Amino acid sequence: MAAYDWITLTTDYGLSDGFAAMMHGVIAQHAPWVRVVDITHQIPPSDVLRGAAVLAQSVGFFPPAVHVGVVDPGVGTGRRAVAIQTPRGVLVGPDNGLLPGAADALGGAISVVRLTERAWFRPDVSNTFHGRDVFAPVAARLAAGIPLTDAGPDLDPATLVRLPDPVVRTGDGFLEAEVVTVDRFGNVQLAAAASALDGLAPHLLVGGVRATRATTFADGEPGRLIVYADSAGKVALAVNGGRAVVALAVTPGDVLRITNA
Amino acid sequence: MAAYDWITLTTDYGLSDGFAAMMHGVIAQHAPWVRVVDITHQIPPSDVLRGAAVLAQSVGFFPPAVHVGVVDPGVGTGRRAVAIQTPRGVLVGPDNGLLPGAADALGGAISVVRLTERAWFRPDVSNTFHGRDVFAPVAARLAAGIPLTDAGPDLDPATLVRLPDPVVRTGDGFLEAEVVTVDRFGNVQLAAAASALDGLAPHLLVGGVRATRATTFADGEPGRLIVYADSAGKVALAVNGGRAVVALAVTPGDVLRITNA
Amino acid sequence: MAAYDWITLTTDYGLSDGFAAMMHGVIAQHAPWVRVVDITHQIPPSDVLRGAAVLAQSVGFFPPAVHVGVVDPGVGTGRRAVAIQTPRGVLVGPDNGLLPGAADALGGAISVVRLTERAWFRPDVSNTFHGRDVFAPVAARLAAGIPLTDAGPDLDPATLVRLPDPVVRTGDGFLEAEVVTVDRFGNVQLAAAASALDGLAPHLLVGGVRATRATTFADGEPGRLIVYADSAGKVALAVNGGRAVVALAVTPGDVLRITNA
Repeated sequence: MAAYDWITLTTDYGLSDGFAAMMHGVIAQHAPWVRVVDITHQIPPSDVLRGAAVLAQSVGFFPPAVHVGVVDPGVGTGRRAVAIQTPRGVLVGPDNGLLPGAADALGGAISVVRLTERAWFRPDVSNTFHGRDVFAPVAARLAAGIPLTDAGPDLDPATLVRLPDPVVRTGDGFLEAEVVTVDRFGNVQLAAAASALDGLAPHLLVGGVRATRATTFADGEPGRLIVYADSAGKVALAVNGGRAVVALAVTPGDVLRITNA
Repeated sequence: MAAYDWITLTTDYGLSDGFAAMMHGVIAQHAPWVRVVDITHQIPPSDVLRGAAVLAQSVGFFPPAVHVGVVDPGVGTGRRAVAIQTPRGVLVGPDNGLLPGAADALGGAISVVRLTERAWFRPDVSNTFHGRDVFAPVAARLAAGIPLTDAGPDLDPATLVRLPDPVVRTGDGFLEAEVVTVDRFGNVQLAAAASALDGLAPHLLVGGVRATRATTFADGEPGRLIVYADSAGKVALAVNGGRAVVALAVTPGDVLRITNA
Repeated sequence: MAAYDWITLTTDYGLSDGFAAMMHGVIAQHAPWVRVVDITHQIPPSDVLRGAAVLAQSVGFFPPAVHVGVVDPGVGTGRRAVAIQTPRGVLVGPDNGLLPGAADALGGAISVVRLTERAWFRPDVSNTFHGRDVFAPVAARLAAGIPLTDAGPDLDPATLVRLPDPVVRTGDGFLEAEVVTVDRFGNVQLAAAASALDGLAPHLLVGGVRATRATTFADGEPGRLIVYADSAGKVALAVNGGRAVVALAVTPGDVLRITNA
């Protein structure tokens, strides 16, 4: 009996090569009934931080699923391959910090298995493409309802590699927070929850740039920087008709300071 | 009983963030049997004109479907959210000019509803991501066969926001028409129907550049500008082995004048 | 009875226009049960060589399928449209060299048909978009189990247009091979099978650049060029944390010489 009807894929494989498609093909061979949704394959190469952010913010909007994440600069080395059972799905991928944030978003790790059972993999596992040879067939078997515990030995969830917590500092009339992601529109998302704005005034300085509190893009005059609660519940910056990332000249990992104007 | 087996998505969300995927996830939760096809998520940010053109030229090639269009710079403001019933499917999206051309392509609006029924939306509607929180769940409910009239009050189709008609002028030995789209190959599509070429000679000047009437790309010598009827039935310009958009230095909205040479 | 549950698409149509989606729509009309996987639509415009390489390296990882390939600068001219039956699926597309490598990967051509039966096409076949008007509906009919021989006259497989064999030369302490593809990571794949490395030393010169034999990316110090067997079984070059294509300044079609250092 099928355990999951859905598999999602999040990788840095891009869409110009056949890599993402080969994962679809391998899943189709092992679990043809499963519906596969690409969350994105456009994570910048090896950018585990970006992959973790996109995955953590997306998985909660799916039905119970097997979520495969592959941003894996250590492929073929001793880095562990893992599957993390949560209350609302399973996460599969390398143990390099990519998955724990998404596991938290799905209710937290119930159990973790190190993927070592070679019968779950493709017969010839390449050294450089575990998305196709390890993670896709493992995801298909988990979707088919084969028990996770057959995939390898239990791991203590506390031993999973986790990314460092991003900087968030609040105080009297100020908020400092790390840039987590910049989206296609140039909107800049900070690590701070939207509630961190509660103590601040309607008119602000963000990294020295004048800004206004707003609820949506068109609330600001064209060209004006706005501070808002984004659709992931985070503090974010946008420019109506423009690109906040350009106005602020920041990149993920930078810390922005917001103060009352 | 399911009313539609297919939903299509056309947005400016790009493929690098999880936005488009979250729409898939929300639909999967509400209407798991539906097959979802991405028309494109690469509409340039906020380019309603481009979104309207791609949607209008694509929807006719699908089985009856719910077509969701989201290019929505006014998200979260007072702009209306609508669903348009046509003989061959339903269109769902903002009332900003994006949808009426596609409604025409599907046989015209039979009825229009303003989407106001919050029970059709996700419980917490964000201010900035109605693709996920409003349009995707509405599309799923329409696919499930819940009557359109339950989604909100009727609107007079004549009140829908429509884009201005593009410039098309024909006369003795000339044709002037607005550039509608430029495709991946650099081919330039005009607003004029292919029949507008009927009165013109085999050798032409297009914006001052020498061109030849042809039926397909390889009919022209390499590097030569050709004028042809494209696969949407419009007058278009191409360069065999090159990019007409570069040869002509035009952009959507420009008006090109074609005359006998 | 359905003959195939899967159709794959490989084109140069990109994802910014509705072209690829219209192929999905046409297939949905004719064979709604079929699952369609996009191998890629990002083949550079008219780059048959690149299309052939991606297709040949991807098709083997799918269940039996109808694989549609459309990189077709000669669309609308006298170039033949063909379907190639293999032991593990059918290939559909233009006869311009795009398909034979993939046919080989699927066990070789059993029979070939020239697609001439207009009843298999869309009613109005455009001159410039046979992906939508010819190849998609043909693929849907083949998936439905309509016999290939109904699609047109038999062709001698030996008459199919084939791309020239890429350069591969091996000798005492050296290997010369043509660059076949460069992937998203900047990894450079050569035409030589991985076994061509057997006679070479652990330390090499690749186009004059010092390199080391390795099994995976992280085996090299950051910035160091490595020579490895890639996931397609070919000799390839990578830079740990960098882009081999930049380090080597090569492009597909160039010949790289590898010698013992």
